[in-house]
Amino acid sequence: MKKVAVILSGSGVFDGAEIHEAVITLLAIRENGAQYQCFAPDVAQMHVVNHLTGEVAEGESRNVLVESARIARGEIKPVTACKPDDFDAIMLPGGFGAAKNLCTFAVDGPECSVNDDVMAVCKAFAEAGKPAGYACIAPALAAAVYKDQRKVTIGNDEGAAAGINALGASHVDCAVDAIVIDTEAKLVTTPAYMLAGDILEAKAGIDKMVKTVLAMK
Amino acid sequence: MKKVAVILSGSGVFDGAEIHEAVITLLAIRENGAQYQCFAPDVAQMHVVNHLTGEVAEGESRNVLVESARIARGEIKPVTACKPDDFDAIMLPGGFGAAKNLCTFAVDGPECSVNDDVMAVCKAFAEAGKPAGYACIAPALAAAVYKDQRKVTIGNDEGAAAGINALGASHVDCAVDAIVIDTEAKLVTTPAYMLAGDILEAKAGIDKMVKTVLAMK
Repeated sequence: MKKVAVILSGSGVFDGAEIHEAVITLLAIRENGAQYQCFAPDVAQMHVVNHLTGEVAEGESRNVLVESARIARGEIKPVTACKPDDFDAIMLPGGFGAAKNLCTFAVDGPECSVNDDVMAVCKAFAEAGKPAGYACIAPALAAAVYKDQRKVTIGNDEGAAAGINALGASHVDCAVDAIVIDTEAKLVTTPAYMLAGDILEAKAGIDKMVKTVLAMK
Repeated sequence: MKKVAVILSGSGVFDGAEIHEAVITLLAIRENGAQYQCFAPDVAQMHVVNHLTGEVAEGESRNVLVESARIARGEIKPVTACKPDDFDAIMLPGGFGAAKNLCTFAVDGPECSVNDDVMAVCKAFAEAGKPAGYACIAPALAAAVYKDQRKVTIGNDEGAAAGINALGASHVDCAVDAIVIDTEAKLVTTPAYMLAGDILEAKAGIDKMVKTVLAMK
């Protein structure tokens, strides 16, 4: 049974991992006969957003690992405990957390920094030639990890695509229910809620991403 | 297209709505060709639980509606805005939030109180003869709403079953991938994570619950 490391970035679309995408990813992994282990960096979130109002909750702080544990039902480890040798693949759902807590692409664009521990783990999977799936805005992080004009997609947002190209990847426009595959890097990306109008559209692309990653040798 | 009111109770299994169950419910509603609108009570959570350690986070407080908005991607309304005339059915996923924030069954058992606004909405659906689905521990709330020896299940936990019977319902043991139907009350329940060992098992029962509720006239 294949094992997948899933890197979460909090719990909630505006300041953490997008919850639908994360759960759909976990579900698809199990539906395709594989297992998962969740990980997240043990750091403070960039900020906390009140998801009812969309406003930043001033004075509140939350920890990415602790909040990610909500999606993982407590079964989660710090990303520093993720050993690529123990896994066949790595997957990252999106949500602003991927571009605020794992890296700072949401605010810094191509000048973004990437959390050192997340970068180390993602690079280790890439260098080991293990397949990877990045959904929604997480492909911006993939751009920083892989560079080398690797093909990735976040859908068709021109600003985000330009930022991704400036990071050294090569953005490819993509429909919501489709995926972009960089065969040589074994890197699969899908727009998910960068384009999805509802949960069915998000699921269509993520299901293809998970199935494709798990089918890779 | 049928419309379903989904009542959430926070975001996270230990102090709110169980996230997998909630997302699977929303997904199944859409997969069965219906629409949903999420609601939650605008009240403080009973407490906040650190989902990494399982310990209560002393001194922290969160609002049920604000946290539920994370699962709903911001598209949520206070439960007082839920008018049964606008919907064909009501559904409640589980998680401790259903038994801590919607009612107090988790701490008070059969002497539990129910949030007045949640009770009013749930009773209005029941009295209008509109079908309802309650998953996981939420059937304890259904017991308080329906009474009248209505058949419900939370799986096979003897203590919880006794509490449910003391509330006036009639507990029926049930497998994780099955449902219990009270045909006269149009009430469908399933154990979900009261028994589920993983997300596939939770999905099996919830999918049947959603499909059965949506097929009811």
